[in-house]
Amino acid sequence: APPTPGAGRTVAPAAAAPRDDGQWLMPAKNYAATRYSAMNEINPSNARNLREVFSFSLGVNKGQEAAPLVVGHMMYVVTAYPNYLYALDLTHPEAPLKWRFAPDPVPASQGVACCDVVNRGAAYADGKIVFNTLDGQTIAVDAESGHQVWRAQLGDINRGETITMAPLIVGNHVLVGDSGGEFGVRGWLTALNLADGSIAWRAYHTGPDRDVLIGNDFHPFYAADRGTDLGVRTWPADHWRIGGGTMWAWIAYDPTTQLIFYGTANPGPWNSEERPGDNKWTAGIFARDARTGAARWFYQFSPHDEHDYDAINEQILLDMPFGGRMRQVLVRMERNGYVYVIDRNSGQVLSADPFGPVNSSRGVDLRTGRLIVNPAKETHLGQMVRDICPTASGAKDWNPSSFSPRTGLIYIPHENLCMDWENLEANYISGTPYVGAEVHMKPGPGGHRGELTAWDPVMRRPRWTIREDLPIWSGTVATGGDVVFYGTMDGLFKAVDARDGHLLWQVRLDSGIIGQPVSYRGPDGHQYVAILTGVGGWSGAIVSGALDPRDGAAALGFVGTMRDLPHRTTPGGTLHVFALPH
Amino acid sequence: APPTPGAGRTVAPAAAAPRDDGQWLMPAKNYAATRYSAMNEINPSNARNLREVFSFSLGVNKGQEAAPLVVGHMMYVVTAYPNYLYALDLTHPEAPLKWRFAPDPVPASQGVACCDVVNRGAAYADGKIVFNTLDGQTIAVDAESGHQVWRAQLGDINRGETITMAPLIVGNHVLVGDSGGEFGVRGWLTALNLADGSIAWRAYHTGPDRDVLIGNDFHPFYAADRGTDLGVRTWPADHWRIGGGTMWAWIAYDPTTQLIFYGTANPGPWNSEERPGDNKWTAGIFARDARTGAARWFYQFSPHDEHDYDAINEQILLDMPFGGRMRQVLVRMERNGYVYVIDRNSGQVLSADPFGPVNSSRGVDLRTGRLIVNPAKETHLGQMVRDICPTASGAKDWNPSSFSPRTGLIYIPHENLCMDWENLEANYISGTPYVGAEVHMKPGPGGHRGELTAWDPVMRRPRWTIREDLPIWSGTVATGGDVVFYGTMDGLFKAVDARDGHLLWQVRLDSGIIGQPVSYRGPDGHQYVAILTGVGGWSGAIVSGALDPRDGAAALGFVGTMRDLPHRTTPGGTLHVFALPH
Ligand SMILES: O=C(O)c1cc(C(=O)O)c2c(n1)C(=O)C(=O)c1cc(C(=O)O)[nH]c1-2
Ligand SMILES: O=C(O)c1cc(C(=O)O)c2c(n1)C(=O)C(=O)c1cc(C(=O)O)[nH]c1-2
Repeated sequence: APPTPGAGRTVAPAAAAPRDDGQWLMPAKNYAATRYSAMNEINPSNARNLREVFSFSLGVNKGQEAAPLVVGHMMYVVTAYPNYLYALDLTHPEAPLKWRFAPDPVPASQGVACCDVVNRGAAYADGKIVFNTLDGQTIAVDAESGHQVWRAQLGDINRGETITMAPLIVGNHVLVGDSGGEFGVRGWLTALNLADGSIAWRAYHTGPDRDVLIGNDFHPFYAADRGTDLGVRTWPADHWRIGGGTMWAWIAYDPTTQLIFYGTANPGPWNSEERPGDNKWTAGIFARDARTGAARWFYQFSPHDEHDYDAINEQILLDMPFGGRMRQVLVRMERNGYVYVIDRNSGQVLSADPFGPVNSSRGVDLRTGRLIVNPAKETHLGQMVRDICPTASGAKDWNPSSFSPRTGLIYIPHENLCMDWENLEANYISGTPYVGAEVHMKPGPGGHRGELTAWDPVMRRPRWTIREDLPIWSGTVATGGDVVFYGTMDGLFKAVDARDGHLLWQVRLDSGIIGQPVSYRGPDGHQYVAILTGVGGWSGAIVSGALDPRDGAAALGFVGTMRDLPHRTTPGGTLHVFALPH
Repeated sequence: APPTPGAGRTVAPAAAAPRDDGQWLMPAKNYAATRYSAMNEINPSNARNLREVFSFSLGVNKGQEAAPLVVGHMMYVVTAYPNYLYALDLTHPEAPLKWRFAPDPVPASQGVACCDVVNRGAAYADGKIVFNTLDGQTIAVDAESGHQVWRAQLGDINRGETITMAPLIVGNHVLVGDSGGEFGVRGWLTALNLADGSIAWRAYHTGPDRDVLIGNDFHPFYAADRGTDLGVRTWPADHWRIGGGTMWAWIAYDPTTQLIFYGTANPGPWNSEERPGDNKWTAGIFARDARTGAARWFYQFSPHDEHDYDAINEQILLDMPFGGRMRQVLVRMERNGYVYVIDRNSGQVLSADPFGPVNSSRGVDLRTGRLIVNPAKETHLGQMVRDICPTASGAKDWNPSSFSPRTGLIYIPHENLCMDWENLEANYISGTPYVGAEVHMKPGPGGHRGELTAWDPVMRRPRWTIREDLPIWSGTVATGGDVVFYGTMDGLFKAVDARDGHLLWQVRLDSGIIGQPVSYRGPDGHQYVAILTGVGGWSGAIVSGALDPRDGAAALGFVGTMRDLPHRTTPGGTLHVFALPH
C-alpha cells in the first residue's frame, strides 16, 4: 500500500503510553517504548543554556548502556559488571547517594560476555527495583531501603549464558531473556513472579512447540511460520539445542490485548552452512500472551540468518494511518536494515523500507513476508565475501529509538557500516565461543560510520539525517520541547531540533556515550536530562577492553573500523545530569 | 616579635612569581608556590553562573591528586597508576585528545604504595612534559608529539621505594624525590639533567654528610643542626640506612638566591622508641643550592618525630612585613599543626602558630627553634595513648594551600582529626611495611573533620574558617577575581569568596575530589577552572581500595574515621573544566 498520510495523527496507544508524570520507571519510558518525555521546559531556543547540575561516578569503567530510572524523588542507576545498583536522592541539589547495592556476580561471567560486560538497565514496580546481573541472576531490591527482596539464578555461565538486558515488568511478571548467542546458548524468555522471583513461565526460542509455548492460540500471519515443531524441524538434527535465538534487549507491551512483543537473536553459529533450514524461531519477533507466555504470532525477519542479524531491537507501538485507515502497529527498526511496520494484532507486515544501506537483501516480499536475499552476499566457507551491508552489528544494534507524537517522527540512532565475511568451521564446546566466521567491518557509503535518522513511519522515508563520523551507539530521547538528545562514542552529548535536526547544543563529557538518555521532572518541578557516559559495548570494546588495534578481526570484527576510538576517548563511567539555569 | 602589620604589603617575590601569562606550567603555578591565578573574569558576583564546559575520563578510578598543566593551547594531565599522560587540545571547545602516553609502570609497585597509587602531577619546561611513575621512574615526553624523550629509573620497588611527587624543573635540572617512609626506604632528592635524564646530583636525607651534600656552605641557624655527620650520629647504629626521611611532595625555588626549599618526611619506623635520637635529617626543611644540591641550611620541625609528622608540605615564598620591616620568608603550613614563618635566607623561625588543634606539642621555642613536646602525648610500646592531635596525617597533609596577593591571605585546606596511638614492635624486612604502630583516627574538636582556613600570615591568625564534615584533601587555588576554589571528598567542587569565605557556587561532581584546582586563560581569552575528581589518597583509600570498613585500623588508621565515605562517593577519575557562559 502506498503511504496515505492525512488519515489521522500517529500516536502511541494511550493504554501503553499514559500521560507523562515526569517519572521514568522503565528504560523505554512506557510499554509502547516511545522514549518520549512530554516535558517542554527545554526547547530549541534555550537548549544552548543547558548546564550540568551534578555528576556521579559509577566506579566502573566499562560500557554503560543503562537508562537511569526516576521513581518519585529518587534516581536509580545500574552499572556494567559488577552491576552495582545506586540510589540517589534527587531532593537535594547534589543528589547524595542514598544506598548502593552490590550483587557480587561471579567474575568468570566477564569471560563469556560477547560484547563487553554491559547492562541495559533496571525496571521499577511495586516498591522494587529489578535488574539482571551478568552472571545470569535477576534481583529485586527494595527501592526504599536498598535491601534485597529476592534473587533468582536463571542463566548458567558454564554454558556461556549471561544476562545483559533490562527486565520489563508487566503486571505481576518480570520478563527476562538470556544472552549467549555466540556461545551456542539456547535462547528463552522467562516470566518471574514479581513477588518472590519464582518462575511463572518460560518460552524457549528453539525446540519443540511445548518448549516454545506454541499451542492453540498460535496464529502466525504467514504460511512459513505454520506447522508443528518448526523449532526442531527447521534445523539439522538436534542442532536446535545449541542454536542461539537468545533475547537480550527490548520488549513492548499492549495492555489492551495483553500481548507482549519481542524479538529473538541470531541462530548459532554464525557460519550458516552448518545449520541448513530456516532455524526457527531465531531472528524473528514473537507476540505472546503476557499472562501465560503462549505464543500468538511470530514473524521471521531473517530466516536462516547468514549475517548475525539478531532481531532483538526495539519496537515502538503506534496507532497510525496506513492505507487510508488507522492501524494498530508496531514499528521495528530492524538490524537487517529495514523499518518494519507490522500489524501488532495479526503479525502482518504492512511495510518494510531500508533506513540505511542494504545489499544483503533486496527487500521484503509482502505477500509471503519473506526477506528476499541477495545471493551475491550469501556467506561461504573459505571465501571472503566482500562489502556486505549492513554488518553483523546491523544497520542498527540494540540502542533504542524514540518517537515524538508532536513530529510523528522516529529518531533512529544507527550505524553506517559494511563488512567482509568468511565462514570458518565452528566446533561446539560448552561455554566457549561458537561463531565460525571471520569478519572485517568498515565504513559504509559516504565514509561516515553513524547516522541519526528522523524517520517518518507514515511517509516511509527519512525526514532528515545527521551524519556522525563514529557509529551511534547511544539511544535517543525525544521531548515535548521538540528537542532530541543523543550521544556519540567520543563523548559528545548533543541536543538537536526534533523538527529539522539542527544542532542546538553539545558538551564534551568524560568518556564516550553508549547509554540511553532520559528526561524527567525533578522534585523542584524543572526538566532534567540524564545520560551515562562510559564507552564500550561491542563497538567500543577496543577501548573498554583495551584491545590491540592491530588485530582488526578482534571483537568479532569490530576492531578494524574503530582503530581511531582509543585516540578519541577513554574508558569511563559517570552519570551526568543537565538542566537549564533556574 | 608581635605582629606588626602595615610595614608593607605581603607579596610573592617577583622573580619567583612572575606576571601571570594565563598558563599553568607546574602544579604550584610558580616557584613561589602561590597557586594564584591573576585572572579575574570569574568573581563573587558571577561565580554562580559557572558551568562545565568539558570533561574527560582518565580511565583510572584511583585517587587523582594531579594539577592539570596548561602549556600554550594544550592541557596535560597525569593520572594515578598506571600513570597515563594525556594531552588535550584546548583550541577546540571539546578539547579533543591529541595523544596519550602510557608508561607501563611495573604492576607490583601498587603493592608498595603506602597511601593509594597517587601521582601529584607533571611539570613543563623546554618542550618537555616531565613526570614520575609509581614504580620509580622519571620520564620526559615531547609535549608536541607525545613521544618519549628519555626515562630514568630512580627508585627500587623491591625495597618499597616508589615515586608519587610532581617533579620541579629548575634551570636545566629536574628535581625528584622518593616515597616509601613506611617501608624503611632511605629518602633523597635527586636532580636529573633535563636534556637527557642523567643524574646531576643526589642528596640523601640520612647518613654521612657527604651523602647529604653537607659541606662548607652549610650554615644552619640553630645549634642543634650543627655538627658532623648528624645524619649518622642522631640514630642508633646503622639505623639511618632504613630511616625514612623521604621526599614526596613540594619544592619551592628562589631564583634570586638560587636556593630550593623542601622538606623531608617522617623517620621510620613510626615506633620512635626503636630509634632514639633526633633522627636527622628527617621531618625538617632543607635549603639547597639548586645547581649543586649543596645544603645551605636545615631546620627540623619535629626532631625525633613520634607521630608520623612528615615535613613535606608546601612552602610559599613571600616578602612580608615582620617586626617592623620587610622580610624574605617562606611560610610553611606544617603537618605538626603550626604555620611557620621562616627567614628563607637564614633558616630562622620568625613565628610558629597553630592553625588547628594541637596537643602533641606546646609550641616552638623560638630561641632554640625546638618544638616543645607534650610528654602526655609521647608514644609508647604496649600503651594506647589517646586523643593525640594532630593525627599521623597531620593538621594538614600534602594537599597544598594558595596565597592571594590581593587579600594577603593563605587558603589552607586541612584536617581536623585526632588519634589514639600504640607503639608496636617493627621488624625491618626489605620491601615490606615497616611501621610499628596501631593508630585510630577520629574527628577533632567540634566533630567536623575538615577545615578551610584563610590564614593571615602577618597577623598570625585565621581571618575566616569554613568547616567541612569530611577532611579536605584537595588543594586550593586563589584568583584575581577574589574567588577561591577547592573540592570535598564527597565530590562538591566549591567557589568561595576569598575575602570572607562565603559560598558562591558549588556543583556535585562524579567522585570525591582530592586534586589540585588550577585556573587558566583559554585560547579564546576567557578564564577557565580545571579540577580532577577521583577519590582516594590516604584518607580516601577506603573507597579507592574498597577496604573493609570494619577494620578501623586499616589504611594506617584512617579507615575508622572514614566509614561514611563509601556511602557518600564512589571511585572515579575525571578531568572537569568550568567557565562562565560566553
Ligand atoms: O546473541 C547474543 O546473545 C548477543 C548478546 C549481546 C549482549 O548480551 O550484549 C549482544 C549480541 N548478541 C549482539 O549480537 C550484539 O550486536 C551486541 C551488541 C552489544 C552491545 O552491548 O554493544 N551486545 C550485543
Ligand atoms: O613517607 C612516605 O614516603 C610517604 C609517602 C606518601 C606518598 O608517596 O603518597 C605519603 C606519606 N608518606 C604520608 O605520610 C601521607 O600522609 C600521605 C598521604 C598521601 C596521599 O596521597 O593522600 N600520600 C602520603
